[in-house]
Amino acid sequence: MKVLIIGGTGTVGKAVIEELNGRHEIIVASRTGGDIQVDIENEASIVEMYKKLPKLDAVVVTTGGRGGHVAPLTEMSVEDYRVGLDSKLLGQVNVVLKGIEFMNEGGSFTLIGGASGAQDVVPQLSNFFMVNAALEGFVTAAATELPKSLRINAVCPTVITESMPAFGSYFRGFSSVPSREIAMAFSKSIEGVQTGQNYNLS
Amino acid sequence: MKVLIIGGTGTVGKAVIEELNGRHEIIVASRTGGDIQVDIENEASIVEMYKKLPKLDAVVVTTGGRGGHVAPLTEMSVEDYRVGLDSKLLGQVNVVLKGIEFMNEGGSFTLIGGASGAQDVVPQLSNFFMVNAALEGFVTAAATELPKSLRINAVCPTVITESMPAFGSYFRGFSSVPSREIAMAFSKSIEGVQTGQNYNLS
Repeated sequence: MKVLIIGGTGTVGKAVIEELNGRHEIIVASRTGGDIQVDIENEASIVEMYKKLPKLDAVVVTTGGRGGHVAPLTEMSVEDYRVGLDSKLLGQVNVVLKGIEFMNEGGSFTLIGGASGAQDVVPQLSNFFMVNAALEGFVTAAATELPKSLRINAVCPTVITESMPAFGSYFRGFSSVPSREIAMAFSKSIEGVQTGQNYNLS
Repeated sequence: MKVLIIGGTGTVGKAVIEELNGRHEIIVASRTGGDIQVDIENEASIVEMYKKLPKLDAVVVTTGGRGGHVAPLTEMSVEDYRVGLDSKLLGQVNVVLKGIEFMNEGGSFTLIGGASGAQDVVPQLSNFFMVNAALEGFVTAAATELPKSLRINAVCPTVITESMPAFGSYFRGFSSVPSREIAMAFSKSIEGVQTGQNYNLS
């Protein structure tokens, strides 16, 4: 399979590449590095990327771009919530919408979600919770409407082990998920038959 | 209790009023009618409304504003997805964010969600699925961070019985939920002690 990994230079992206390498042809996209550059918040950039590539069998996103705004609820504004909506949510949604015509029949999209359930709530991350849940809703609905037998799933980990030095203070009491385990869920989506699934890794 | 019902002139709003009337003091807000006017997509309008009212014990939203964009996935753009994100999601979020300081200790916010689970998927409503799920994620997280012992819940019905003439064709095979039943879930939120709940009525 020809597999495009957007965010392939990051921690999760590298783990996915390690899992898939040897079995598939990998193309790495990233904002500034990789084989090809893309800004998922910029529609023209997404389309330009797809036009330069051969037809794909799998599109994988392992980056949420700017991700979301971190702040206590009482200090959040609707503009702060747009950080995550514009980047991690709509950025990934547009990778799907614009990618449909560049995919081979039966191909798959696999997106990166995150914590959204009540048992995973932590302080100051309400923007992420909103965005992760929204992405799950989109995946659920989009799976039923994609043409060409295309599939779509999301991998939804709580805090990643390799991110604990940066984010551990938000996740006291949480068992982190190693990127190796997250890569397995991506493999299940890319190399399997499932669609409309949000793989909850927590 | 002093209860503000934003969207109180609509089908669900009227049912909530009927359920609460006699037990509580109701203030009806609406875009063009009611006791006071508000556009939940306009932050200044929200703040102006709150400033004109006495301190509140419950803020209820029974309108999603423009709601969302209805179209097949393959005809959707990210701008179409913003219709629901800006109105039903961020409109309600801002009612909460801006309302905090105008609430009495122990008050509650009750928002209107909708279908988001895989068994409720219907065609052309991926914008609504995204938004309804996002709202649930926000409620889950916000409940843990609200000050002054404020509570927050959402009522999440599938298609409303009274809306079947307009939307029935999207919901073949679905049992609709009468607004009377939806009003009971609002009552449970407003008059109870629960918080962080998304009442799934399907």
